[in-house]
Amino acid sequence: MKTRAAVAWAAGKPLSIETIEIGGPKAGEVLVEVMATGLCHTDQYTLSGRDPEGLFPAILGHEGAGIVREVGAGVTSLKPGDHVIPLYTPECRQCKTCLSQRSNLCTAIRATQGRGVMPDGTSRFSCEGTQVMHYMGCSTFANFTVLPEIALAKIREDAPFDKICYIGCGVTTGVGAVINTAKVWPGANVAVFGLGGIGLNVLQGARMVGADKIIGIDLNPGREAMARQFGMTHFINPNDVGHDRVVQAIIDLTGGGADFSFECIGNTKVMRQALECTHRGWGESIIIGVAGAGEEISTRPFQLVTGRNWRGTAFGGARGRTDVPKIVDWYMEGKIDIDSLITHTMPLDQINHGFELMERGESIRSVVVY
Amino acid sequence: MKTRAAVAWAAGKPLSIETIEIGGPKAGEVLVEVMATGLCHTDQYTLSGRDPEGLFPAILGHEGAGIVREVGAGVTSLKPGDHVIPLYTPECRQCKTCLSQRSNLCTAIRATQGRGVMPDGTSRFSCEGTQVMHYMGCSTFANFTVLPEIALAKIREDAPFDKICYIGCGVTTGVGAVINTAKVWPGANVAVFGLGGIGLNVLQGARMVGADKIIGIDLNPGREAMARQFGMTHFINPNDVGHDRVVQAIIDLTGGGADFSFECIGNTKVMRQALECTHRGWGESIIIGVAGAGEEISTRPFQLVTGRNWRGTAFGGARGRTDVPKIVDWYMEGKIDIDSLITHTMPLDQINHGFELMERGESIRSVVVY
Repeated sequence: MKTRAAVAWAAGKPLSIETIEIGGPKAGEVLVEVMATGLCHTDQYTLSGRDPEGLFPAILGHEGAGIVREVGAGVTSLKPGDHVIPLYTPECRQCKTCLSQRSNLCTAIRATQGRGVMPDGTSRFSCEGTQVMHYMGCSTFANFTVLPEIALAKIREDAPFDKICYIGCGVTTGVGAVINTAKVWPGANVAVFGLGGIGLNVLQGARMVGADKIIGIDLNPGREAMARQFGMTHFINPNDVGHDRVVQAIIDLTGGGADFSFECIGNTKVMRQALECTHRGWGESIIIGVAGAGEEISTRPFQLVTGRNWRGTAFGGARGRTDVPKIVDWYMEGKIDIDSLITHTMPLDQINHGFELMERGESIRSVVVY
Repeated sequence: MKTRAAVAWAAGKPLSIETIEIGGPKAGEVLVEVMATGLCHTDQYTLSGRDPEGLFPAILGHEGAGIVREVGAGVTSLKPGDHVIPLYTPECRQCKTCLSQRSNLCTAIRATQGRGVMPDGTSRFSCEGTQVMHYMGCSTFANFTVLPEIALAKIREDAPFDKICYIGCGVTTGVGAVINTAKVWPGANVAVFGLGGIGLNVLQGARMVGADKIIGIDLNPGREAMARQFGMTHFINPNDVGHDRVVQAIIDLTGGGADFSFECIGNTKVMRQALECTHRGWGESIIIGVAGAGEEISTRPFQLVTGRNWRGTAFGGARGRTDVPKIVDWYMEGKIDIDSLITHTMPLDQINHGFELMERGESIRSVVVY
């Protein structure tokens, strides 16, 4: 069949709206009509050419929501009409990692996903005879896409696509880091470095689980108001207190250090501050942000020997098929706010405008509605 | 009263056997007759002058066992005749850290202990009119010493002092890191970097809790036999496999990486290897070794974002008064071996010889018996 898609022909070029040919679904695969997709910094990162693993041409996009239209042979857990969120971190429930119950980083299709193809080693996309690669196993910048059954979370049917698509990446990454990775406890003090989309979701995750002080740190004073709306109780601007004084300011504010901190920027210097502002004895610092290729984090081992814990998280530690439907429920129950974060909505043919808004810092989340 | 002690008059000088004057015990304090004390690398580190926090003159020694001879006013948990192990990490059960139940790093007397004095701010030791400082709150290189009640673990009376003194530091640090900090599970794969005294105790802790593969890494092939006796199942000598290949060798041997690793050397480059050899998704690396002043650890944050966990431990995460008596029981029940580790026993006046043996790598543990 044919569908409309935004094709990334090459690094550093705008996306091009094309009619592409889409094949399948083959055995174990599902054809999904994408109803909405968010534009994420990771898409932008790959499009820019800075992602060393970026492949072109490709159909980017990994933060979608849609409806199952057709299932391939052997698909048992989904049927046409089901509402779904694509998962760039699948959940096969069979691999060593899934069975370990200790990590969400399912390895079932990692190798082929990294090569931009389906598990059988081929792409379902082509454009005028040229093969086009899949992206993060999702490719939601197409009105129709094909995914493996294990990479789709079935969700309730009354949830609005143009909001819950954000659960496909940003919301789950932030809220999940609090709940699944850190397991923040009620009454904990939390520090959140970087108050963009991820940071805001960390804030509301911390509020949801009953954290006490929720300290936000950002250079941009314009972000304070929205952050307070999402649960931040204290704001620190490093330009005000002095960049070298941020750690001490957090220690002072919490009477010894944050119980948990989250780095939501991708800045290795900030990652160090995030670790060192946590409480002696038990503080945990969770890295969410993605650093530039080759960059390294450092600290004195004394920081760890005296009880701090340095960790990271991907997709909020969420098992997609198990946890994503729960987050959709939380949104529908009003426990978390997504509406305020969707600052722009647009049709597919304005997708490049959406990336320009992101580039200029004028959006929190732009969503393409098909 | 007067007692014999090995006084460290200055950095870099041999200890000097002296008759010193000892005061107290004051309120909340306990006079202990030290029956035996181990010689630890930390004593040597301070004596060498490399410890930036070292104070002189001082009575070093922190790995002892003895008998309560007198208690000060208000002491309720101990009485003369009780057998005890001094605790350089006390357990007050009242401070924020003790009450947190999340760390063993009791802060009740940290400030004064760091200044070489008792909690009232004064020293109990003098030698010919010169004040002599306490060390790590213990000062077991004296036949009698004074400690706060909260810094003494009461133990069973049938345990031999010349063996269980080692539980005052090395044994608890190694075994405790496995049990309290890492909480190694049965069937886990474990990598232990450095097969000195701490490493051997990590090995036997891992064996005790039912670890599967227990991999030891050391440059010294002479350490292999003893390590196997303590539970090591696989030995890697970086000089054989290549220093750059150690991480991959462990990943290959474990089918993906160690579930837990322990750095027992204090080498920041090895700390990085110890992290990076752990399993994607859930591997935990525990730093036990003490790095040189100012040295830093580094890695790519990707190592953490993909699920590895970088931690540290001090005194094996043990709450001294609660956990040390249990380890004494384990020794008496034959669950852990200490006898094989006590390679040399000597009277106090040969203590400098004991440090020479350590310096030359000829001892695992030397113990002074009073």
